[in-house]
Amino acid sequence: MTVPLFVLPFLLQCCLCLGLYHHPLDPLTPSELNQIKLIVDRSKIGSLPNLTYHIVDLEEPDKTDVLRWLSSEKPNRNARPRRAMVVVRAGGETRELVVDIAAGTILSNHVYTGHGFPAFTFNEFVEASTLPFQYPKFTKSIVSRGLNVSEVSCVPLTVGWYGETVTRRALRVTCYYRGGSVNVYARPIEGISIFVDVDTMRITNYIDRFRVPVPKAEGTDFRSRMNIDSVTCDNNNTTGKEFEIEGNNVKWGNWKFHVGFNARAGTVISTASFFDPKTKKYRQVLYRGHVSETFVPYMDPENEWYFRTFMDVGEFGFGRSASTLQPSIDCPANAEYMDGYVAGADGQAMKMQRVICVFQRTSGDIGWRHAEINNPGTVIRSGQAERSLVVRMVATVGNYDYVLDWEFKPCGTIQIGVDLTGILLLKGSPYTNKQQITADVYGTLVADNTLAVNHDHFLTYYLDLDVDGNGNSFVRAKQETARVTDLNASPRKSYWRVVKETAKTEADARFRLGLEPADLLVVNPNKKTKLGNQVGYRLIPGEPLTSLLTDDDYPQIRASYTKYQVWVTAYNKSERWAGGFYADRSRGDDGLAIWSKRNKMVENKDIVVWYTVGLHHSPYQEDFPVMPSVHSGFQLRPANFFESNPTLL
Amino acid sequence: MTVPLFVLPFLLQCCLCLGLYHHPLDPLTPSELNQIKLIVDRSKIGSLPNLTYHIVDLEEPDKTDVLRWLSSEKPNRNARPRRAMVVVRAGGETRELVVDIAAGTILSNHVYTGHGFPAFTFNEFVEASTLPFQYPKFTKSIVSRGLNVSEVSCVPLTVGWYGETVTRRALRVTCYYRGGSVNVYARPIEGISIFVDVDTMRITNYIDRFRVPVPKAEGTDFRSRMNIDSVTCDNNNTTGKEFEIEGNNVKWGNWKFHVGFNARAGTVISTASFFDPKTKKYRQVLYRGHVSETFVPYMDPENEWYFRTFMDVGEFGFGRSASTLQPSIDCPANAEYMDGYVAGADGQAMKMQRVICVFQRTSGDIGWRHAEINNPGTVIRSGQAERSLVVRMVATVGNYDYVLDWEFKPCGTIQIGVDLTGILLLKGSPYTNKQQITADVYGTLVADNTLAVNHDHFLTYYLDLDVDGNGNSFVRAKQETARVTDLNASPRKSYWRVVKETAKTEADARFRLGLEPADLLVVNPNKKTKLGNQVGYRLIPGEPLTSLLTDDDYPQIRASYTKYQVWVTAYNKSERWAGGFYADRSRGDDGLAIWSKRNKMVENKDIVVWYTVGLHHSPYQEDFPVMPSVHSGFQLRPANFFESNPTLL
Repeated sequence: MTVPLFVLPFLLQCCLCLGLYHHPLDPLTPSELNQIKLIVDRSKIGSLPNLTYHIVDLEEPDKTDVLRWLSSEKPNRNARPRRAMVVVRAGGETRELVVDIAAGTILSNHVYTGHGFPAFTFNEFVEASTLPFQYPKFTKSIVSRGLNVSEVSCVPLTVGWYGETVTRRALRVTCYYRGGSVNVYARPIEGISIFVDVDTMRITNYIDRFRVPVPKAEGTDFRSRMNIDSVTCDNNNTTGKEFEIEGNNVKWGNWKFHVGFNARAGTVISTASFFDPKTKKYRQVLYRGHVSETFVPYMDPENEWYFRTFMDVGEFGFGRSASTLQPSIDCPANAEYMDGYVAGADGQAMKMQRVICVFQRTSGDIGWRHAEINNPGTVIRSGQAERSLVVRMVATVGNYDYVLDWEFKPCGTIQIGVDLTGILLLKGSPYTNKQQITADVYGTLVADNTLAVNHDHFLTYYLDLDVDGNGNSFVRAKQETARVTDLNASPRKSYWRVVKETAKTEADARFRLGLEPADLLVVNPNKKTKLGNQVGYRLIPGEPLTSLLTDDDYPQIRASYTKYQVWVTAYNKSERWAGGFYADRSRGDDGLAIWSKRNKMVENKDIVVWYTVGLHHSPYQEDFPVMPSVHSGFQLRPANFFESNPTLL
Repeated sequence: MTVPLFVLPFLLQCCLCLGLYHHPLDPLTPSELNQIKLIVDRSKIGSLPNLTYHIVDLEEPDKTDVLRWLSSEKPNRNARPRRAMVVVRAGGETRELVVDIAAGTILSNHVYTGHGFPAFTFNEFVEASTLPFQYPKFTKSIVSRGLNVSEVSCVPLTVGWYGETVTRRALRVTCYYRGGSVNVYARPIEGISIFVDVDTMRITNYIDRFRVPVPKAEGTDFRSRMNIDSVTCDNNNTTGKEFEIEGNNVKWGNWKFHVGFNARAGTVISTASFFDPKTKKYRQVLYRGHVSETFVPYMDPENEWYFRTFMDVGEFGFGRSASTLQPSIDCPANAEYMDGYVAGADGQAMKMQRVICVFQRTSGDIGWRHAEINNPGTVIRSGQAERSLVVRMVATVGNYDYVLDWEFKPCGTIQIGVDLTGILLLKGSPYTNKQQITADVYGTLVADNTLAVNHDHFLTYYLDLDVDGNGNSFVRAKQETARVTDLNASPRKSYWRVVKETAKTEADARFRLGLEPADLLVVNPNKKTKLGNQVGYRLIPGEPLTSLLTDDDYPQIRASYTKYQVWVTAYNKSERWAGGFYADRSRGDDGLAIWSKRNKMVENKDIVVWYTVGLHHSPYQEDFPVMPSVHSGFQLRPANFFESNPTLL
């Protein structure tokens, strides 16, 4: 059945009246998009030369209209006329249109005369990328490099602006070689610059400046060998477990490590090593890792509160405070549990049930993925869902519940998680409304007569990384702004470069995060990859916070190490507890800050990294009567530890 | 069968010889613990008065021994004798012992004479906490407050050190009222200080300084009403979906929001609101949220690379670059998919298949939990596994794959996730080993003849939060060190207090993170909770990074807004794209930094927050041939938006 064109808008308007629109901000439907095209094509604009559509988007109703529409009853919904905002290019001009879709009219139409251009169309990208193949100089460049033109793929790059007074729409095209690899971006053909004027779709300049070898195809494939089936949710509650626990030894994928339980630290990870799929050997990563101390000072100087400046590990013991884990709440249904044993006050062994759980999870996150469109006629997609093994403990120190995770990933990363939940430390109060409060109450009113006092948590981790062996160094690979020296050589004025600082002694190793951007690395200066990069692991921190107490304040004297998030010390077997071995009523004369004063050498030595996860807690009403978890933590991630992505084999 | 005591060590030693130990760092087993107790009890120490065991831990073998043992063949493993490190208290002294378990001997025994004490025993905590109940003054304090002594629970707090020249082992005990609540910590009995000398286990001082009302029991219960079954893994791949999608409208738990798809931004979240279980009404949270621009400058000033300073959203389009999602890789098996529609270059509607997925996940994380031991004779545990709804898109802009998540949680939090994966932008090179490199190559050698160039990513988010309505303010609640003014009033010298700074105009709203600690809040100054706190949402940032390019560098002129992670502007419907509407070849004369110069008022106005997720990327070999995901992101979390934890009803 043929319908006269003029009828269509009428029909569409009927649909609108019927209230078929779910929401005034709904994206333009296919029918609407096509209707808009009809309207524009039919207008004077439709006859302009080289008409291309760059932006066709909903012209949004005003917020007040949207909210009014949303809050009105369904039958009375008066759907506003739908409008489109359209940006086309034609005859070298950028035109902005507003189209009334139902009415079939163009409400406004003007030429944009400012700087800049709308996004390119997919067609323009493709056309520009194929121009080289009709360009004789290009063919010559390729052939003279000993390459086969039919194996070349080119991609378009936007060019920005570098002070030109006149700018035309342009792209620079750069090319890659397939030749047996589907990972097009892995084999660049360097040295060739192809300048394309997009409006005329011609190559306006061509430079072949130098040659370097094209990287080989071997080792570039990004496609996963894993069976898709093995990463479905079934693995979350699989009865055929993918990890082995023998005594305290855990094996999972390429990871092998020891899980200990200790009355003071709780979970202790030891001798963690990774089976390198290339060298077929286990390589050392982390000799020992655990929470060393947890400093929790409250910010209320009054008589009943000033002293509440706990050292949860040394005074109470995280292991002693370990909570019996609740299946399906604390740990998923597929978890396995480990009991812990501590000595009671009389020295007798006491069993602490289900204090550690181990589970594999497929969180729904993506391990890695890529979709490659530059192989002719096909799109190649691959990836791996993220799987990981979690070793979890919960330490309930009175009111607070600390969820402490060691999470091992197939790519060699260890993710350390700290979640805070449980009950706030609360203070009785005469107040039932904030307006009644005239003096400082050191916290938030979270319920009638209930104040939640401000406080901090500083969880200091002991990380005896032994990256591929004992001789390690701590390196700050700083990203520093560099100015381009020869402005004739480049239109760019700046970039950043990596400046590496290796800590020589304990004193210059400690520092505060957040002041200078840097990658934090524990490297083995005696080991290099085949390409000559130093083997290492990177510490990726969380939000950088330190203690705000003054250095002369007694609790700060006891926990002085909390002024720096990172310390590095020379390995000494007995030095494990950042606040000192005897933490209760300590005077700050033992512990991390004291040991560092001796200023031992830490370059190419057996070193220990101490990293502090810090949180400032201003309580909110949502934290009452029990707190939704606040996540924190950090990562240890391979950094030139492997020759390439270890999950791709 | 009775066995003479002296035989036991012999038997144990045989076990050792048989190599039954899995790992030299294994925690002490129950038999070992009991053996150690026997050994100590039998020795002279065993007859000391008031002997208590505080620390009984493995005395660890030296690292070299451990590693040697680990690397030797199984049958030849020569298990080192196991030793214990023991700290006991007796007769007011701290003694450190080292015990040879198998030999049954004490290898060393000396009294510690330094400062500080070992952790308390559980018995000491319990005893100290029950002392008040035999103390007449305490009974009087309780009764005169109109309270029932049998409903009181007391807990022990450690006391630290405040300059005392002599310190004894001490605790301060503080008390709470149950009286119908199991959440003991929720009902403090304020004003009473009880000082306990632990070695004599006596109350040495007692102060009842003032009275305030004890908070009521109503509303304090922390136990979850949820059925345990509903949070097992089955929910990950449930066929009975817990979320509803009608058109572009999504409903999940208490959340209701609109998911749009746009060629430029990709996923657009609109009119997100939360059903308040207390008021039984939907309350506004986020009017619109999406990626506004993504600036990706490369750090190589040479001819073929200097201009690679992409604005991925404005030049290419995140929506246009949306990748068709791979089931079980990009999204879990239970995900539902949405297609997107954009206009082609000819204006015709084009379908983009499976560009957004929506899935519920039970990640294995804990939503909240608590174990309460202070109700007599019972331990009360509760909690909720974390559930969330994820709305995901992947934008593959050439080589890079951006995984962009909007994750909604039952507690009212929206977690925005940015994962970077895909292929690095690589540069051909003559080098096959780092040693060959003499000049700056602006990156890392990641394969033969392959350099990965240093670069940044700055993803700027448009966040039109309308917290409980349009009239909002942006507040920096700074944690500032405060000195205690009257040193006679308190032994504490410092604490931090919250100092709130409300942004008045666009100029004073923008700032750099990381310099001063603060909670970042979008509040509604016209709405307060029942307790009088301003209703709000908190923006919890990730690692604070900004652009390092110089302000006069052309790419930095175009993306000048990347010098500050946070901007706040007055709402203007057309202002959505941080780099300007026409981003390709823009000159920096439109966009976020320009609009802010007009310096509009932003206090108690309809405001928009712009937050930038920044990453500096120094590539590593593991990033080749495809990058394991790097996680980043930020959170929007209720902050006095609700009267209490909204998941507990």
